Amino acid sequence: MAGDVFVHPNALNESESIGRGTRIWAFAHIMRGAVVRTDCNIGDHSFIESGADVGNGVTIKNGVCIWEGVKIEDFVFIGPGVMFTNDRYPRSPRAPVAQERYSKKENWLLPTLIREGASIGAKAVILAGVTIGRYATVAAGALVARNVPDFSLVAGNPAVAIGHVCMCGHPLPASLECISCDRVYEKIDGQLRLRGEEGAAE
Amino acid sequence: MAGDVFVHPNALNESESIGRGTRIWAFAHIMRGAVVRTDCNIGDHSFIESGADVGNGVTIKNGVCIWEGVKIEDFVFIGPGVMFTNDRYPRSPRAPVAQERYSKKENWLLPTLIREGASIGAKAVILAGVTIGRYATVAAGALVARNVPDFSLVAGNPAVAIGHVCMCGHPLPASLECISCDRVYEKIDGQLRLRGEEGAAE
Amino acid sequence: MAGDVFVHPNALNESESIGRGTRIWAFAHIMRGAVVRTDCNIGDHSFIESGADVGNGVTIKNGVCIWEGVKIEDFVFIGPGVMFTNDRYPRSPRAPVAQERYSKKENWLLPTLIREGASIGAKAVILAGVTIGRYATVAAGALVARNVPDFSLVAGNPAVAIGHVCMCGHPLPASLECISCDRVYEKIDGQLRLRGEEGAAE
Repeated sequence: MAGDVFVHPNALNESESIGRGTRIWAFAHIMRGAVVRTDCNIGDHSFIESGADVGNGVTIKNGVCIWEGVKIEDFVFIGPGVMFTNDRYPRSPRAPVAQERYSKKENWLLPTLIREGASIGAKAVILAGVTIGRYATVAAGALVARNVPDFSLVAGNPAVAIGHVCMCGHPLPASLECISCDRVYEKIDGQLRLRGEEGAAE
Repeated sequence: MAGDVFVHPNALNESESIGRGTRIWAFAHIMRGAVVRTDCNIGDHSFIESGADVGNGVTIKNGVCIWEGVKIEDFVFIGPGVMFTNDRYPRSPRAPVAQERYSKKENWLLPTLIREGASIGAKAVILAGVTIGRYATVAAGALVARNVPDFSLVAGNPAVAIGHVCMCGHPLPASLECISCDRVYEKIDGQLRLRGEEGAAE
Repeated sequence: MAGDVFVHPNALNESESIGRGTRIWAFAHIMRGAVVRTDCNIGDHSFIESGADVGNGVTIKNGVCIWEGVKIEDFVFIGPGVMFTNDRYPRSPRAPVAQERYSKKENWLLPTLIREGASIGAKAVILAGVTIGRYATVAAGALVARNVPDFSLVAGNPAVAIGHVCMCGHPLPASLECISCDRVYEKIDGQLRLRGEEGAAE
């Protein structure tokens, strides 16, 4: 996956797993072993750690950190300053009281999954262990401590559901008919899905 | 506006519109087409995008991103890690469902205005479309989703008004007489203004 | 304290007071006059100002700013994007209305103290003047405006106490017996301390 990748002269890319068409901007740092697929945009001052996994067509704005254990599916939007985490009870691994815990990754590393097309607003924080559903939106500044269903809109600290959003990004009215595009949704077993699309929301 | 600008050797300045006396610190990046006027300070790891407009005597601390559509008037303080936004319903522009929306700026770009002398505390997030009034203060960590009047103090997520501040920065008591300097305010039609200054708060 | 310090080729270290075994990663900037003791880890894009004081075995993740006036004791964990502050009522020092205030540090500089073994979660904001107690934990995204006692767990904006944590990092049940290690605590005069350790929590 080496050809046709743009790496800004002030960026630092150590990964050999960057897909075609992906652009990496100034002062960003991609570590060896990080995977970033095709046609992504990695903003200034971002950091992608060994073991992180980023899909196709993902937009990562400035100053984002993506750690080992975080998997981001295709077409996700990660706003500026968004922070992921991979440890629920952190201590300094250099502290004597914490050295046993940090001797094995399974003691502390919790995975996070951001599903296709989701958007995470500026400066939101995503706690380790969470899954954010397809085309869900996390509002700017939110602190997400629990899973977010497909097409859900969450906001606040801690984040709570405040509505639904369309695949196109626009909030949905109670009728579940998007006023910005022509998509219509229905609620089945408490979960939103596109009307007429079998299992679209799974 | 080219002479007498300090650019740290580890910074990246691509703009030709930087005013005299302005200093740009390590790992900051100013894009071509960004305007920053005289006597500003741009902290480490900050980013100013093409189309952003920064006034005179503005202090921008570390790790701040200022996007196209954001206008900052003279003498504003932008705390470390403050994040602006310019899109209320972001999706990855690389997603097929979002490509029409991002084909024209007027579909998504919302302006933000920070008026003279205002202060924005550390890590606050300012939603696109908001105006923050003259000498208002946004507390650290606030999420600002609505306009903030002149001299108002707002805090929280979402931010709500919790009082007023003096031009000098100090919170005002109920008497509207600053205990830190000699300024006195009055409330006219629900808006604070400096006593004796015709239209000072407009 | 000069030997055996790792400074990444893309980092900028101007301090002569870095302890043995400390590692400074890409795009981090340590200013002259900053003190960082032995065996610390300073993540990418972090910034440590002249006058900041960092103890031994401290883990500082990415994108953290530590200012003059901030003192961090041994074995502390500072999560990614954590922001300290040192001024409660900031204005742009370049504004005419603020120049007298910023002419003397004692007019505005408030100290902050993070005590031994404490953990500060991702993107938390610590207001100037606060002390965070030994082995306390600040949850990710919290805004800390008041002192935090030893072993306390605080969360939210503004942060409030939601429980206690063990030295090992794990939240404590009501019995104050850690389910993750063998430590037992007792409450004396409203303060938690390790059972059998004279004054351990002071």
